[in-house]
Amino acid sequence: MEAPELQRHYLPDFELQSGIVLPELVIAYRCYGCLNQDASNVVVFPTYYTGTDSSNARLIGTGRALDPDNYFIIVPNLCGNGVSSSPSNTAAPFDGPRFPLVTVYDNVRAQKKLLEHLGIEYVALVLGWSMGGMQSYQWCAQYPDCVSNALVICATARTSAHNKVFLDGVSAALLADQHFNGGDYLSSPVAGLKAFARVYVGWAYSQAFFRNGRFRELGFSTVDDLIGDWEDDHLSWDANNLLAMLATWRAGDISQQWPFENCLGDALAAIKARVHLMPCEEDLYFRYEDTLQELEFLSKGKDCRYRSEFGHCSAGPGRVAEVTVLVEEQVRLLLSGV
Amino acid sequence: MEAPELQRHYLPDFELQSGIVLPELVIAYRCYGCLNQDASNVVVFPTYYTGTDSSNARLIGTGRALDPDNYFIIVPNLCGNGVSSSPSNTAAPFDGPRFPLVTVYDNVRAQKKLLEHLGIEYVALVLGWSMGGMQSYQWCAQYPDCVSNALVICATARTSAHNKVFLDGVSAALLADQHFNGGDYLSSPVAGLKAFARVYVGWAYSQAFFRNGRFRELGFSTVDDLIGDWEDDHLSWDANNLLAMLATWRAGDISQQWPFENCLGDALAAIKARVHLMPCEEDLYFRYEDTLQELEFLSKGKDCRYRSEFGHCSAGPGRVAEVTVLVEEQVRLLLSGV
Repeated sequence: MEAPELQRHYLPDFELQSGIVLPELVIAYRCYGCLNQDASNVVVFPTYYTGTDSSNARLIGTGRALDPDNYFIIVPNLCGNGVSSSPSNTAAPFDGPRFPLVTVYDNVRAQKKLLEHLGIEYVALVLGWSMGGMQSYQWCAQYPDCVSNALVICATARTSAHNKVFLDGVSAALLADQHFNGGDYLSSPVAGLKAFARVYVGWAYSQAFFRNGRFRELGFSTVDDLIGDWEDDHLSWDANNLLAMLATWRAGDISQQWPFENCLGDALAAIKARVHLMPCEEDLYFRYEDTLQELEFLSKGKDCRYRSEFGHCSAGPGRVAEVTVLVEEQVRLLLSGV
Repeated sequence: MEAPELQRHYLPDFELQSGIVLPELVIAYRCYGCLNQDASNVVVFPTYYTGTDSSNARLIGTGRALDPDNYFIIVPNLCGNGVSSSPSNTAAPFDGPRFPLVTVYDNVRAQKKLLEHLGIEYVALVLGWSMGGMQSYQWCAQYPDCVSNALVICATARTSAHNKVFLDGVSAALLADQHFNGGDYLSSPVAGLKAFARVYVGWAYSQAFFRNGRFRELGFSTVDDLIGDWEDDHLSWDANNLLAMLATWRAGDISQQWPFENCLGDALAAIKARVHLMPCEEDLYFRYEDTLQELEFLSKGKDCRYRSEFGHCSAGPGRVAEVTVLVEEQVRLLLSGV
């Protein structure tokens, strides 16, 4: 399938949750398929941390659950990922380390404006993995009358205390590199980015993944090869962009908006969409126990947890075949309205 | 109880497993109680990563399971901990980052020589937590005819692949700090040590520990207070010492000695001691699944696993009262010979 054109939606004078006004916020996105006459076939599929719209494309295709022959699938890039507005592509005074916190709420508000611009009022399904799942949850809480179904994969409605400790660990590893220079680096902080990746990889899978050598199924002969690949991937990222997305993640909390006043139970209870929660029991930072606590407040929630030694990364779009099958099963179920 | 005097045993021309000969290896230790006439009341209680003999003293006392009125308790300091031979106290050419790898085998061989010097042939009980547990396991495999009982708490016989990834993460965070300067730092690499601590803390407890605010039971009002305490503790350590102990830990493997040729099953099967394995199910790096795999090869092994949201740190000597009770129960059981 040839990839559709990358498009950009420009939002002038975009006021963030923090009160800071960005002179322009850009949401870069790709659309697959055609909008039907009553605009009832819309799927929103936001991207994840260190993902771009291209990463999500791995789940989209003719004959698949996310079929562009039947659905109009919009993949908006997460702010900070270098494609939508990010530290690396924003003009002064909001460039680099001066790029403000763009919350999940801000991302979803920008995505809603994009949909309005496209003439879309309702979303048949919003889905995503990891930070994509956080955005999906956020859609349900922020626009309860606009979303019919949500599939939240390896994500929670509020970033847990432990998840924050994990995030603070990876960012501390990056910041320990003096070349980072408060974000005004002259060249990439190589040691910091590599340390960041090395710390991250211990959390990204499960302990059993390493015990049972399952990295081989991902094409790596040794753990060192796997870590080397993570290092290379992180070296290809702008350090400020990584930290901007991390800040978004860390601040994730669907109750941080009117009228919920930080009460997570209220925010969850206000969700009208059917929400299928798909945590992985071996996920080390988006813990299924947190998901199960959230589930209790949802009026139309469903526990779709699964097991995989690939842990959090098991549901990275197109990475682990048997998990892709599970995800597509849930997509079909939700879209069929059963 | 007044602490007994810290003593030192000097081992000249100590050949390490690597073949490197240290001109002098020093084992610093403290003894509690008196050796009985037939030298049958000996307990060896090695220290853990970032612990010293003083840390282990928290489990020793009159009327307790480790009672100096009944037992002669020897607490040898782990090499690298700044009390026994370490990067910080060793003369050139083995000073600082030039300090060689001292394996768990090397530590235990030095401890055995100390015991011989004290006129001791048999050990009634060897016990320890974390790296102390690794040394206990090692004692059983290295001197199978000299150890009657072992209590291995939150430790494994071989450092697992995932455990190594965790260790590489924390050390990468430290090494990302250019002030570390290959170990020849002029002043302490503060950012690196703090990052090291920050990464570590995410692994040291369980996710539920943070979810349920159990850091409050340790005297901290917030997660930040807890992390700050870890940072302060790590700033008090010499960076090369931390890395030396980490290298010992990483290389942990009781089968890396004659005649086992890296066959863990054989090394475990050769153990004659009664071994009680006490993993914590919530421990994130010394996984109980690894322990259970090892248990299958032990002729007199017992699964004494327990649950605690305090995770790996639950069994740090004297830290969590209900776990101390469990540990002392096992000590009594093993020493009573039941």
